[in-house]
Amino acid sequence: MKALVLSSGGLDSTVCIAMAVEQLGRDNVITVSFDYGQRHKKELNCSAQIAKFYGLKHYVLSLTDILQYSDCSLLDGSTQEIEQKSYAQQISENGEGKVSTYVPFRNGLMLSSAAALAQSLYPEEECKIWIGAHADDAAGMAYADCSPQFTDTMGKAISIGTYGLVGLEAPLVELNKAGVVKEGIRLNVPFNLTWSCYLGGEKACGKCGTCIDRLNAFKQNGIEDPIDYE
Amino acid sequence: MKALVLSSGGLDSTVCIAMAVEQLGRDNVITVSFDYGQRHKKELNCSAQIAKFYGLKHYVLSLTDILQYSDCSLLDGSTQEIEQKSYAQQISENGEGKVSTYVPFRNGLMLSSAAALAQSLYPEEECKIWIGAHADDAAGMAYADCSPQFTDTMGKAISIGTYGLVGLEAPLVELNKAGVVKEGIRLNVPFNLTWSCYLGGEKACGKCGTCIDRLNAFKQNGIEDPIDYE
Repeated sequence: MKALVLSSGGLDSTVCIAMAVEQLGRDNVITVSFDYGQRHKKELNCSAQIAKFYGLKHYVLSLTDILQYSDCSLLDGSTQEIEQKSYAQQISENGEGKVSTYVPFRNGLMLSSAAALAQSLYPEEECKIWIGAHADDAAGMAYADCSPQFTDTMGKAISIGTYGLVGLEAPLVELNKAGVVKEGIRLNVPFNLTWSCYLGGEKACGKCGTCIDRLNAFKQNGIEDPIDYE
Repeated sequence: MKALVLSSGGLDSTVCIAMAVEQLGRDNVITVSFDYGQRHKKELNCSAQIAKFYGLKHYVLSLTDILQYSDCSLLDGSTQEIEQKSYAQQISENGEGKVSTYVPFRNGLMLSSAAALAQSLYPEEECKIWIGAHADDAAGMAYADCSPQFTDTMGKAISIGTYGLVGLEAPLVELNKAGVVKEGIRLNVPFNLTWSCYLGGEKACGKCGTCIDRLNAFKQNGIEDPIDYE
């Protein structure tokens, strides 16, 4: 059994990598990152360094051509600003549903691309795609494509479309961000190598939705986030 | 309601376009083709001409980066030969399952990309993705990602991941190839503009799996295929 872990360079996917390595051994684990036209490439550098830390083969695939017509605020060249509010705040102000950082069907694209990569590298072997989606991502349907219903259904589609060889593993889907950090502490995850901030500054901004949620998650575990903030 | 039709330049997807135009009117229909690294670009030229014939806006998205690690016989640079046998023959000789022209999770990739395009172009509007998968494609599981179970499940995943805005329409999924040709005759589809052959010669080869199936489908309808064969 092989594991192909989706690595964003962030905290959640790095915890996922640590879990896959613990369960299957590093010889059976590879990672993949996606260039989807994000505003900065910092997270791509981080995912390469994290793969190096664990001694894993790392792939980078480009989704920029497919997403060229999107005006999502996360993408380079977008006319929209990134909101400096937690998701909970955005949802309570705008109601349930899509946030401005929703990249059109991004998780669907990443999972499909990972399924194609798994079938390309291991045409006859079973492979699970590991994804670090967690409970907070799907709260209030901020990101519809992070919900447990989405990962369940997409996992079934991938299995049917790959002759049952490729499956999905979403080990964090029931945990909130604090629970993810807790699991990361247990596994000695190199948090210092991870990058979560939506902006690409030298230090994390500490103000965007993902910075706020990350800082809170460390706080709830009673430890300090080892990365630098502005 | 908008329709985004997956157009391969082949017979099935062109019948799909004609059905969408009949149902929704051409102002609500657009088409998309995929450059997935196929051996020849003839089908991309055909799909552009077919869109022009119907007066539809046409998009081309590239999947070549994602499929760069595949050695499928349909792809440019593959070490494998294209089999000159019908699918039925390949299945009876090799048993049920994957054929050498299976491109890793191609339909999953195309549908996910189309969902992302639909959400990029129409962020707040309902859009159906029309796909020309038909019964013969899935026979004997030659192409697992053409089966009704696949399109059903993938359609559900797309709907969940796009806040219910994007859905799937597979109007040919219960028809065999002869049934597709029959529907095309009813709709005056310009069969002369379509290209099905896996090879990129000036004329269709008449010998590959898809040529054999196409010729039979016309024969069963008692009319001649208007394109030239070697």
